Amino acid sequence: MAVLSEALTQILIPTSALIGIGFALLQWLLVSKVKVSVDYGKKDGYKDKLIEDEEEGAENADAVIKCAEIQNAISVGATSFLFTQYKYLGIFMVAFAVVIFLFLGSVKGFSTQSEPCTYNPGNLCKPALANAMFSTIAFLLGALTSVLSGFLGMKIATYANARTTLEARKGVGKAFITAFRSGAVMGFLLAANGLLVLYVTINLFKLYYGDDWEGLYESITGYGLGGSSMALFGRVGGGIYTKAADVGADLVGKVEKNIPEDDPRNPAVIADNVGDNVGDIAGMGSDLFGSYAESSCAALFVASISSFGITHDYSAMSYPLTISAMGIVICLITTLFATDLAEIRHVSEIEPSLKRQLLISTILMTAGIAVVSFFALPSEFTLFNFGTEKAVKNWHLFFCVSIGLWAGLAIGYITEYYTSNAYSPVQDVADSCRTGAATNVIFGLALGYKSVIIPIFAIAIAIYISFSLAAMYGVAVAALGMLSTIATGLAIDAYGPISDNAGGIAEMAGMSHKIRERTDALDAAGNTTAAIGKGFAIGSAALVSLALFGAFVSRAGIKTVDVLTPKVFIGLIVGAMLPYWFSAMTMKSVGSAALKMVEEVRRQFNTIPGLMEGRAKPDYANCVKISTDASLREMIPPGALVMLTPLIAGTLFGVETLAGVLAGSLVSGVQVAISASNTGGAWDNAKKYIEAGASEHAKSLGPKGSDSHKAAVIGDTIGDPLKDTSGPSLNILIKLMAVESLVFAPFFAAHGGLLFKLL
Amino acid sequence: MAVLSEALTQILIPTSALIGIGFALLQWLLVSKVKVSVDYGKKDGYKDKLIEDEEEGAENADAVIKCAEIQNAISVGATSFLFTQYKYLGIFMVAFAVVIFLFLGSVKGFSTQSEPCTYNPGNLCKPALANAMFSTIAFLLGALTSVLSGFLGMKIATYANARTTLEARKGVGKAFITAFRSGAVMGFLLAANGLLVLYVTINLFKLYYGDDWEGLYESITGYGLGGSSMALFGRVGGGIYTKAADVGADLVGKVEKNIPEDDPRNPAVIADNVGDNVGDIAGMGSDLFGSYAESSCAALFVASISSFGITHDYSAMSYPLTISAMGIVICLITTLFATDLAEIRHVSEIEPSLKRQLLISTILMTAGIAVVSFFALPSEFTLFNFGTEKAVKNWHLFFCVSIGLWAGLAIGYITEYYTSNAYSPVQDVADSCRTGAATNVIFGLALGYKSVIIPIFAIAIAIYISFSLAAMYGVAVAALGMLSTIATGLAIDAYGPISDNAGGIAEMAGMSHKIRERTDALDAAGNTTAAIGKGFAIGSAALVSLALFGAFVSRAGIKTVDVLTPKVFIGLIVGAMLPYWFSAMTMKSVGSAALKMVEEVRRQFNTIPGLMEGRAKPDYANCVKISTDASLREMIPPGALVMLTPLIAGTLFGVETLAGVLAGSLVSGVQVAISASNTGGAWDNAKKYIEAGASEHAKSLGPKGSDSHKAAVIGDTIGDPLKDTSGPSLNILIKLMAVESLVFAPFFAAHGGLLFKLL
Repeated sequence: MAVLSEALTQILIPTSALIGIGFALLQWLLVSKVKVSVDYGKKDGYKDKLIEDEEEGAENADAVIKCAEIQNAISVGATSFLFTQYKYLGIFMVAFAVVIFLFLGSVKGFSTQSEPCTYNPGNLCKPALANAMFSTIAFLLGALTSVLSGFLGMKIATYANARTTLEARKGVGKAFITAFRSGAVMGFLLAANGLLVLYVTINLFKLYYGDDWEGLYESITGYGLGGSSMALFGRVGGGIYTKAADVGADLVGKVEKNIPEDDPRNPAVIADNVGDNVGDIAGMGSDLFGSYAESSCAALFVASISSFGITHDYSAMSYPLTISAMGIVICLITTLFATDLAEIRHVSEIEPSLKRQLLISTILMTAGIAVVSFFALPSEFTLFNFGTEKAVKNWHLFFCVSIGLWAGLAIGYITEYYTSNAYSPVQDVADSCRTGAATNVIFGLALGYKSVIIPIFAIAIAIYISFSLAAMYGVAVAALGMLSTIATGLAIDAYGPISDNAGGIAEMAGMSHKIRERTDALDAAGNTTAAIGKGFAIGSAALVSLALFGAFVSRAGIKTVDVLTPKVFIGLIVGAMLPYWFSAMTMKSVGSAALKMVEEVRRQFNTIPGLMEGRAKPDYANCVKISTDASLREMIPPGALVMLTPLIAGTLFGVETLAGVLAGSLVSGVQVAISASNTGGAWDNAKKYIEAGASEHAKSLGPKGSDSHKAAVIGDTIGDPLKDTSGPSLNILIKLMAVESLVFAPFFAAHGGLLFKLL
Repeated sequence: MAVLSEALTQILIPTSALIGIGFALLQWLLVSKVKVSVDYGKKDGYKDKLIEDEEEGAENADAVIKCAEIQNAISVGATSFLFTQYKYLGIFMVAFAVVIFLFLGSVKGFSTQSEPCTYNPGNLCKPALANAMFSTIAFLLGALTSVLSGFLGMKIATYANARTTLEARKGVGKAFITAFRSGAVMGFLLAANGLLVLYVTINLFKLYYGDDWEGLYESITGYGLGGSSMALFGRVGGGIYTKAADVGADLVGKVEKNIPEDDPRNPAVIADNVGDNVGDIAGMGSDLFGSYAESSCAALFVASISSFGITHDYSAMSYPLTISAMGIVICLITTLFATDLAEIRHVSEIEPSLKRQLLISTILMTAGIAVVSFFALPSEFTLFNFGTEKAVKNWHLFFCVSIGLWAGLAIGYITEYYTSNAYSPVQDVADSCRTGAATNVIFGLALGYKSVIIPIFAIAIAIYISFSLAAMYGVAVAALGMLSTIATGLAIDAYGPISDNAGGIAEMAGMSHKIRERTDALDAAGNTTAAIGKGFAIGSAALVSLALFGAFVSRAGIKTVDVLTPKVFIGLIVGAMLPYWFSAMTMKSVGSAALKMVEEVRRQFNTIPGLMEGRAKPDYANCVKISTDASLREMIPPGALVMLTPLIAGTLFGVETLAGVLAGSLVSGVQVAISASNTGGAWDNAKKYIEAGASEHAKSLGPKGSDSHKAAVIGDTIGDPLKDTSGPSLNILIKLMAVESLVFAPFFAAHGGLLFKLL
């Protein structure tokens, strides 16, 4: 048995979750010290309090009031989008909960009889009907936790954006810390909440399940499905929202009216800033939460039918949770390096400081994994490996988790290389703008394709090692390893859209040029970290999907998925096609939604007198409403594709074909997702490279408005839906199909393959 | 045993091949009746002979002389490219022949001892060394046949282009027939030569092998490898050549100098027209020849280890060849419908007439397949199915071949729907040009992604049926079914570049507007048929690769390719990445080669006085040389990727990983290839749609030079490398890796997996 006792495990996991939540609240408190209202006491009060080093904007109380107004508009817009989304989401949750209950309940014809366990036939397991009910409850809990995490993230982000702008008056370091702390609030809340709810759910379910761990952890997989299906709304709906607003605002504002980005006269400008929050914050948060929940569930499920579950070794069984608990503590320490132990004094220190966060957390976490692996696991045990048992040692699992962690770092660094304009790939793309938009697009696409190579090798190595050492359990914990530093990863990632918003607010509030330069510098670093975040999200999605796939085939009772059978092969080739179908839908959705936004913006410019001259205010709310409605309507077809494919494939063609579909969409989707994200990121930064004109080469391509710059703008606009909608949405496609298959596996195994049975 | 006797089979196959060759020569003779020289007799002679219905250009003997000159320049350029290519190709062939001989010879340590057969252990089989030698010979024969077919195709195409231009003076119908007949020469020569050489090779090899059919047909697989490796040069080298010239000519000519396409002042114009011949004619020809040779070899190999081979049923064994022989006869009849039984009188009849060719050949061939299946096959037999025997009936094989044939037709029609500007998808893309190049690109990419759906379902259905009915043999003959009408398919396909050239010659020779309108109409139909041809090529490549994959695993002695093993899974995900790596290389290659061309064209415009005013002639030959050199140099990295991957994967990681790589690259590559081809085709035709202005909608987007048209031109330029280089080259990637693995299978099985053995 493990060195770590059950009692201690029961204390450690919730304690570190609570520490994480406490730390998040502390960060929030620190951010809240920056006041965006000037209404307390006399008007000059804020001056004494805030403006220490520098004096800019100090005389301008109006700017503060304006910031507060804009922040309020963004916050109201984002909240209104989320609440409208929740209406649809509520209907979906109830309907899907019913489907889960009915499908799983029907496995044994809604019998309330206990049955002998599948993997431990000596024991008696709870009836399938109970599993159906608890899976449904777990699904609802996962969904609610995801919603809560996304909502809180959005709240802190819209709370912090104006504060970052105001802090920028005091210097880039202060602004950086405000944005980063706010990101940390999001990161820690999400990681800690996810862990805590999962922990509590398991312990509550155990009251009913008692000795039946097989049924217990089978039901818990519903938690992953819940988390991931909310991510569908967050990622796909949010992705369509943000890019419809962005592309719509740019096409009329920048191209037709020739006004700068984030100009307050543009009616879509608030919608655009709202989009950053609902897409990049709430969407990314729900995506990563989904990955976290799914990899935990996959690992727990495989463990429950292995020796951990059969010998009822609670500490070993909770290994995935203990790893996550350790991750929260490690990330807490890592955060201090950015906020307290060192201070940013210059713009050039921003990006290295963020990259250092990744490296520090990875190094510390490797030690953390070693500690957990040696104390929480017995030195030898067996793991379920598709019908056979595999003997494993605790240090094997140390390698599995670590390889996932380090593969994540490698993917992050490679993504940075291909999307940051500090390196030659993006500079080459910028250079190709000389001969026009066509060569820019050709070089950008080629860059995206090329950027797939190393991440795939990194993923393949991680898979090979973890798979060989500890079968599908190894892959699941490798995914958890990649996600163990999720709090830091999300902090870095959420920092980007907060800085983006801060820049927008500075522009809209008419702040001085110097302040905008600072927010621009924060934003540019945010672009690269956003790409890194997407790299992480895709890499972890690949590992998670494989782990879920493994759990699915185990649960469905399949022993081999043989490509040399027609059932599997057609699944494989059709599965490999799904990412294309899905991308076609999401890209078309952005296109149609953006055209609607274009019409509205044009209408406002044409019908509101004095708008162009800045004498009248545009109707921001209407644009927010258009983006909200369009994104929710447009997400239905891609959402239906994701949700229905496993149900149709499983019911009509059976588990073998479905296994092929999952494997095909996984190996194909990960390529499309990485290339789309990196191509888009590279185009964005190629444009920024020309605009910034920081080197001789960059100057020779600029300035803003030159032919090369125009070509770069076209690339950037094409990249928007690729990098923020269709690319990252593919994570959801591959993960959600896998976890849905896992949850419904008993139904498909019992009743699936109708069409082949008929033939 | 089969109804058809061995003797009759021995007569029928070569006879129909000879009929095919005779028919091709007859068509050539008919085309040659159009004279491009005015030197025979008195100058007016040609007037009496040629100009019957109309009088245009009749007075202009200069135009004829100019046509002859231009034709000569194109022909010289194409020949020079091919001969330069042959030098590299010769070195490659010799080197690779040595590799094949050494690798295969080493399987049994170069022993000259006969051994018991693997699948028929009662018999004695020839030594591995003999197989190595005969495989090498077959490889060389396949390579030479491919080279010959490509060369002859290029010869007739460059012979026919000016003749088509001249015939256009008499009307669109005459010009159409000339172009189509010339395409038929290419189609029939290729199909008949391929069959004849294969037939003769088998019979010659049999003199040595005698009863050892296992060894005989194992060696014959070298023929497929030879054919396919030449396609690497044809498709990839030719693809880079044609697009480097095209993009280079356009970027300077159309964009910088504002002169029309095919203007004789543009120094790259001859290179551009040469490109059509070496890329679309020789490249496409070698690609389809490769598919044909490979699917025949895969089917023959599987048959040889099934009951046909073991009971020595020659007629049944030759079923794949008999199907191809029947195909030649059917295509001959089909051709008459276009050239003799009906005549085109109006521009609008061109596209329907070409589409009718596909339909007629498919319907007739279905009957042909039935005849062959019932006479050449025994009514019941068994087929090898990865270690087990599968009982099959002759009508099962009828369904296998037919489903492949009809799947090809379905793919052709769907491709037409997505790439012809007669339907809404391309019109929507054209419409999106209103809001600029960015939306055009977004909609175009979405169209390409969407166009993948139905072809993949068609391929999946074909695979499922043929695989279920007759295992891998079924898949191989399904591929053969799709290729059975190759003569007609190639005729339609080769018609496109010939018409394109004819238009270019008309422009360069300064023919009247009316004649150019006719050649433009021929060319527009050719764009769509080119897309259809690519659809066929990709669809057949998918089936062929799967058949080769099946033959490979059979030969390597693998019984399952289980995704649930780490070795296979990492192969799968890395294999799915290869199409991206390969596309990144080919797109970059086109980009760099095009930039070289841009420099040369600019140089000539700057340094040759009077060039822009038409007083001086440009140095065409230098541009041809640049394209030639660049394409051959740039094809080395992608070529090395294709050729080395199976060798490295097989030697270091073993046959399971290699099987994963093949499956992954197949299911991923086919998607990338279809979407790239169709996106490019759609952009091209969206531009043509705006230019033609045939409807109110199209007029509202035009005319040439409008903002929408400019946006469409950008899309077209991006699409060029996608549709003509990187997309179709992927066929080679997936097929060549598979056939190479098949040929080297005994070596990998004996000595492969070094790395895993070390660990």
